[in-house]
Amino acid sequence: MLAANLITELKKIVGGQNILTSKEDMTTYSYDGTAFWSHMPDVVVLPTSAEEISRIMKLANREQIPVTPRGGGTNISGGSVPIKGGIVLCTTRMNRILEINKTNLTVTAECGVVLQDLNLALAKEKLFFPPDPQSFFACTLGGNAAENAGGPYCVKYGVFKQYLLGMEVVLADGTIMKLGGLTAKNRTGYELMMLMTGSEGTLGIITKMNLKVIPAPPAAQTVLAIFDDIGQGIQAVPNIMDAGIIPAKVEFVDNFILGRIEDLFKLGLPKDAQVLLMLQVDGSPAGVATETEQMVEILKKSGARLIKPAKDAQESAFFWKARSGGFAAIYSSARTVFAEDVTVPRDKLVVFLKRLSEITKETGIDINIIGHAGDGNLHPSVGTDPRDKEHFARAMDTIDRIINMALELGGVLSGEHGVGLDKQRFLKRAMDPAAVELMKKIKAILDPNNILNPGKIWEEEAKDGG
Amino acid sequence: MLAANLITELKKIVGGQNILTSKEDMTTYSYDGTAFWSHMPDVVVLPTSAEEISRIMKLANREQIPVTPRGGGTNISGGSVPIKGGIVLCTTRMNRILEINKTNLTVTAECGVVLQDLNLALAKEKLFFPPDPQSFFACTLGGNAAENAGGPYCVKYGVFKQYLLGMEVVLADGTIMKLGGLTAKNRTGYELMMLMTGSEGTLGIITKMNLKVIPAPPAAQTVLAIFDDIGQGIQAVPNIMDAGIIPAKVEFVDNFILGRIEDLFKLGLPKDAQVLLMLQVDGSPAGVATETEQMVEILKKSGARLIKPAKDAQESAFFWKARSGGFAAIYSSARTVFAEDVTVPRDKLVVFLKRLSEITKETGIDINIIGHAGDGNLHPSVGTDPRDKEHFARAMDTIDRIINMALELGGVLSGEHGVGLDKQRFLKRAMDPAAVELMKKIKAILDPNNILNPGKIWEEEAKDGG
Repeated sequence: MLAANLITELKKIVGGQNILTSKEDMTTYSYDGTAFWSHMPDVVVLPTSAEEISRIMKLANREQIPVTPRGGGTNISGGSVPIKGGIVLCTTRMNRILEINKTNLTVTAECGVVLQDLNLALAKEKLFFPPDPQSFFACTLGGNAAENAGGPYCVKYGVFKQYLLGMEVVLADGTIMKLGGLTAKNRTGYELMMLMTGSEGTLGIITKMNLKVIPAPPAAQTVLAIFDDIGQGIQAVPNIMDAGIIPAKVEFVDNFILGRIEDLFKLGLPKDAQVLLMLQVDGSPAGVATETEQMVEILKKSGARLIKPAKDAQESAFFWKARSGGFAAIYSSARTVFAEDVTVPRDKLVVFLKRLSEITKETGIDINIIGHAGDGNLHPSVGTDPRDKEHFARAMDTIDRIINMALELGGVLSGEHGVGLDKQRFLKRAMDPAAVELMKKIKAILDPNNILNPGKIWEEEAKDGG
Repeated sequence: MLAANLITELKKIVGGQNILTSKEDMTTYSYDGTAFWSHMPDVVVLPTSAEEISRIMKLANREQIPVTPRGGGTNISGGSVPIKGGIVLCTTRMNRILEINKTNLTVTAECGVVLQDLNLALAKEKLFFPPDPQSFFACTLGGNAAENAGGPYCVKYGVFKQYLLGMEVVLADGTIMKLGGLTAKNRTGYELMMLMTGSEGTLGIITKMNLKVIPAPPAAQTVLAIFDDIGQGIQAVPNIMDAGIIPAKVEFVDNFILGRIEDLFKLGLPKDAQVLLMLQVDGSPAGVATETEQMVEILKKSGARLIKPAKDAQESAFFWKARSGGFAAIYSSARTVFAEDVTVPRDKLVVFLKRLSEITKETGIDINIIGHAGDGNLHPSVGTDPRDKEHFARAMDTIDRIINMALELGGVLSGEHGVGLDKQRFLKRAMDPAAVELMKKIKAILDPNNILNPGKIWEEEAKDGG
């Protein structure tokens, strides 16, 4: 609990309408997309400007109150859970798109803008912002930047950091710092903006950003391809790339999720197949037409049992909705679902998938897989129920094995979700100790009182007499 | 001068054949591509492994000897000039391409690999590494990473940092640190690799890297367009983008350089024209064909006086060679040439170019311009002779005005060349003081003895009793 005078001080900063203190109101801010990690905050503030955030941070720094920044709270790493209590600083009321500049191909927006709102505003101008975390209906740009979000489009278009040109960030001591700006390139000093990106709210609160956008591709075509053999399905992707085609998306769906998609959306897919690939090419109409033809040919040669190009934009949209529905089906398949986020080098995908089925044989826990085959980023998902201790223990063991296997194959702990609370117990295995040490030193200079999203990324060490 | 025993110790580390101490040998390592900044080192070492570099750094750290890392020495910011003497650590003998992985679309290479050697090796595999600093015949990957190099291809394909997946870096204390790896995505911890990128050798020595490559575009087409009016030439670029076409390159050449190109290469260009745009589109053959048609149409409508698509790949290569020749012509036009590197938001290009001609009227110093119109990164160049004090002073005043003007328009000090020695006097104007302060703090934790490329990026403050 925060002392009453501190609540009063916070109220003075943000106004009474922008502060929540009741248990009912605050519960919403106690968890995130994991639905596993949760902790109640002492207070929730919803500031409306960087200046207010600066004043909140000065107060929090003086009083050493933990501050957990939060946007839509859609992250699935525990990253926005206020695990140490204190202040949840929710940015959703800073949701203005300040400028869309078509000549400069840039957008300036506040951190609380919902990604889909940006997408819709850009579509009107025939512009396109590629990073597409699948929480786009609710996630905010600030969270996207802090987590360096990715999504299906990354295989061709890269991740969030590649679209960040400028940033306003409030530091732990309340300093408002400006980095970069509206230019397409910038080589002035260290890449401090990149350091803030992906720092998961532990180094600063990103309040405003300048983003690069691109002209919307005039045409796009979605193609579904069904394979009976996992190896053939995976190999189809480099076969396509080898022809000089970079698909905008290449999604992998396993047998279980394929079945759920078919149950829900009736696409006419054979439920006994092992792999569904969902591909999209985009660009000029002529380019898309010939690339689609080529791709269909290559998919055939790669052993596809069924190839289904979308008839039109409407069917294409329906296919992608079905994919989302399939992913959602994983979440409804168990009380608690851990959607892992390991990424392996693309040439290790086949062996990795084979090893996953071996892990299932060893632990008796099913692993469902949906993910980005185009960049080796899979989401092996494990469903369990924490109340069933025996099952839960086997599920945790399964996750442990998945992560070890990915690391053994030269993969990484997280491709796009971040470490947060969920993956911090694996960090030491996944990173050079010198790099972890350096992260801690950087944290210490930016946030000496450890008030910004404390308890995240790395495990805390026991303190003497603590 | 280094004490003889230290030279002996360095010899033991790298072997007698990898150390240079004579004035004749060392002179080569005393300057860079600016041909303005220079300083003799005390010794040049050419290590052949990260382990050797680690041992050199341990020695240098213990003895507090400045270490200036250097690749091809092609940078034009003074960045690789050993301004404090000490050791030049030249990485050109670490020039092995360790792996080209076509399925994974990655390359693993040592820091001393010359960019063009990588390009040629990749071309054999139908792969493409887009970042293309125009020093590609001599610059090395380590320098490219340390400077976060860009080039004409950046408008479509982005800069060097966007292709870095993994890195081995030797820190000031000799620690060998591994960051990232071979995966397309990685969200494990802070973006330390991005911090090293663009740090200009002041935070660590990048020894090895994993780079993303892409399938080579099957087709490309170059188009030249001549305009009598600068505004029309510049406006043609957003007109093209507005049609959903992202050219791979859009280069801007001014009247002076157009004339030199015509003198040297006889392309049949009217020497009285104000702007030459050099555009390239790439992708699938069908896409390139229709995009070229569209682009020619848009260029016409935008007011182009002459439009000249390259007849074939050979003529296209000749056009790009002519561009390089034009840039080289600037360098031969005066004893010392300062090629600035300011970048402005694209929608400010026309007014910026207009202001440049006003600056010339005010100072009487010609400004020649070649640059990347597609991303607002121009290289306004000023030729002078330091022996002519009056002219030199006016030239320096001209540069000052150029930079102030760019900053006033929301532009940045450097788009791709870095700060080094050349631009450090402008840094305070160009960066938030909080950001400069933060850079210094990061430098202090990574290099407390200030031995790594000292004297670069920011100006040193006078020390009490120093």
